[in-house]
Amino acid sequence: MIKFDNPCLDRPYLVFKEKYNESLIAKQDNIEAICISSYSPKDDEVNARYVNLKFINDNQFIFFSNYNSPKSIEFNQHEQITASIYWSRTNVQIRMKAYIKKTSKEFNQNYFAERDEKKNALAISSYQSSPIDSYEMLKKNYEICLKKNNLNECPDYWGGYSFTPYYFEFWEGHKSRLNKREAYKFQNDEWIHSFLQA
Amino acid sequence: MIKFDNPCLDRPYLVFKEKYNESLIAKQDNIEAICISSYSPKDDEVNARYVNLKFINDNQFIFFSNYNSPKSIEFNQHEQITASIYWSRTNVQIRMKAYIKKTSKEFNQNYFAERDEKKNALAISSYQSSPIDSYEMLKKNYEICLKKNNLNECPDYWGGYSFTPYYFEFWEGHKSRLNKREAYKFQNDEWIHSFLQA
Repeated sequence: MIKFDNPCLDRPYLVFKEKYNESLIAKQDNIEAICISSYSPKDDEVNARYVNLKFINDNQFIFFSNYNSPKSIEFNQHEQITASIYWSRTNVQIRMKAYIKKTSKEFNQNYFAERDEKKNALAISSYQSSPIDSYEMLKKNYEICLKKNNLNECPDYWGGYSFTPYYFEFWEGHKSRLNKREAYKFQNDEWIHSFLQA
Repeated sequence: MIKFDNPCLDRPYLVFKEKYNESLIAKQDNIEAICISSYSPKDDEVNARYVNLKFINDNQFIFFSNYNSPKSIEFNQHEQITASIYWSRTNVQIRMKAYIKKTSKEFNQNYFAERDEKKNALAISSYQSSPIDSYEMLKKNYEICLKKNNLNECPDYWGGYSFTPYYFEFWEGHKSRLNKREAYKFQNDEWIHSFLQA
């Protein structure tokens, strides 16, 4: 589930909410899964991974990560990203282009303090994406951490990312294959709407 | 559904097939949906969109597109891409890095000739991703095309893309949140396996 705070009333945000509600009613599993595509100029390589979108607060989309993870290193190098959602139950695709930035330390700390301690132990103990000898080793590190640390204190290397799209595209698959595509581009302080060919 | 031809027996391909079968049994909707992330050096912009993966032939992943679409222009500029799959029913994520290239004209023509004529009319009539006045206009163009063209002849501006991954990553979500991550990297003619921290 995605938590909507201070809902933004701009047209693409309303369309987003509408499609979300339809997919929720259609019992979409893991509805918060969103693919974040990034680019590393250093490696001249495109990368992507799914994250859980936690909040949409006004016009900001927010998820959380280890700040030393490969994706964080890529965001530091190249702030522009694309976020893609596909809800298979309703056959709806949403594409968003945006610039990404870290959320504030205060925001991270408040969110962390509210979370389940077991989840926090995982965030503290994992060197996200680093190689490890085995899955058992991961479990062991986690269990040691569960006993030791102050599990309500957010470490510096963990926190949120927020992005505000400058481009939205909504795609809806139809049985006829005459798929519906609509785009919204933010230009000169307003959202420009267009229909696109499927 | 994805069609598997001449199955590749390399370890990551076997794991891919195993996860695919599990998701198929779990009744994953639109199991062939795959997110293709690309980069445009001209616009210094990352982009992504879902496509339908049609074939895995030996070690090649194949989908089809209009060759004048924005994604084709991006592939021409920057051949390296990332392909991401998320099967929500089994909570499995697969990430692949690869270089992309067009399939042969002969391959495209053979595939096109076998397809449903209605789908072909759509491929012929649509200037993919170009703006259009309305959804009704899209329908109208399509209906005109249905009557007029030779619907078995593949136009030059339509065909396949194929990619062969040099990197695979499999992620499996667990209720405990101790997620399982395994990577395979192709190096010096062999697949190097590693476990990654969640």
